Amino acid sequence: MPNAAGPGSGAAAPALRKGQTTRAAIVEAALAVARRDGLEGLTIGALAERLQMSKSGLFAHFGSREELQLAVLNRYAARFVDVVLRPALARPRGLPRLRALLENWLGQLAEEIEAGCILIAGACEYDDRPGALHDTLVSVVEGWKGELLRAIQAAQDEGHLDRRADADQMVFEIYGLMLMLHQDARLLRSSHSVQRARRALARLIESARPRTPGARAGRGLRRAQY
Amino acid sequence: MPNAAGPGSGAAAPALRKGQTTRAAIVEAALAVARRDGLEGLTIGALAERLQMSKSGLFAHFGSREELQLAVLNRYAARFVDVVLRPALARPRGLPRLRALLENWLGQLAEEIEAGCILIAGACEYDDRPGALHDTLVSVVEGWKGELLRAIQAAQDEGHLDRRADADQMVFEIYGLMLMLHQDARLLRSSHSVQRARRALARLIESARPRTPGARAGRGLRRAQY
Repeated sequence: MPNAAGPGSGAAAPALRKGQTTRAAIVEAALAVARRDGLEGLTIGALAERLQMSKSGLFAHFGSREELQLAVLNRYAARFVDVVLRPALARPRGLPRLRALLENWLGQLAEEIEAGCILIAGACEYDDRPGALHDTLVSVVEGWKGELLRAIQAAQDEGHLDRRADADQMVFEIYGLMLMLHQDARLLRSSHSVQRARRALARLIESARPRTPGARAGRGLRRAQY
Repeated sequence: MPNAAGPGSGAAAPALRKGQTTRAAIVEAALAVARRDGLEGLTIGALAERLQMSKSGLFAHFGSREELQLAVLNRYAARFVDVVLRPALARPRGLPRLRALLENWLGQLAEEIEAGCILIAGACEYDDRPGALHDTLVSVVEGWKGELLRAIQAAQDEGHLDRRADADQMVFEIYGLMLMLHQDARLLRSSHSVQRARRALARLIESARPRTPGARAGRGLRRAQY
């Protein structure tokens, strides 16, 4: 995952700091617009109105609409890292960390049901529109899939998951459940989608547990949870 | 699934028939545009240019852009019924029919990887835009989920799948695999997505097979396929 949060800028001149603060506030407002209308629905005009700024004032911070959209996408990715990935990395390597990743992702999606997930909606918007936004979206999604893959492989290394399980296949199936959760909750207003995704994730993990009773008992991990 | 194919119009006056033919040709062209640019990207202007017609000529057939978008969505749904659902209904009730449904859907998605699936892309476009398009999309998606549910329940009635399996949960997981196939193939240009979805579908069906060896052997159905 790209992490847009830069190093601290304690030594920056006050004018620069103020500029950065304004820029950050603009990106936050733009992120709210993009959640509602999609990255493609994010226009300088709509944002200027929302912020009660002039369009030229906005262009002073972002040279183009695409630059603003990219800043929003990177901000979203950085927050995703903070909320979903980073807390899980504090958990023990193996199944505990994988479970934390999945639970944090579920929690993030459950919160986003009203607003919409920029990564999932963006994948639909940009899957056939070449350009910087498409490329950034691909790198964010691939980065996140890479994190999931590493977590699964670590659980295999620790003996918590069967080494013969196809880790790439597991990433595919896990991601599909999250896409369905998003569609079911948003389009069909289903109230069961988080519960359904959680149940399927538990089954998926369970079916990849080592087959030898010794390995399972030896690790002290319980069945029927993920 | 709504079926937009109306009854035959053999007795219609020639002028009416010609009007219907033109309308059908416009809808076909509009469907191609919507596959590329999304239903939201379908504009009367772009379509008029593609068809080398005047905008007013188009408006003679479709009173509004929304009417055109609805016609495209209904045409897509009718074709989906013809290609995915109807051939499967010719197969024996139970697991053979369910497998045919899933294989036809996979085939349809595999063909749509370049053009994009209107149902999946539309779900992202309209999940939070109230209106006739949203409502029609919801009814198409719910109708299709209903067909899948009925096919699973019939397989349970026939003893091909365990009656204790949660059929709604299976629909959720199956649909998620198809969403992931679409995203992986289109956004990430993965060449394995159809194969991964097929493998996961086989595992999903296999895990819902009856547990008693008698029931399985008695039906003469083989394992490890779906």
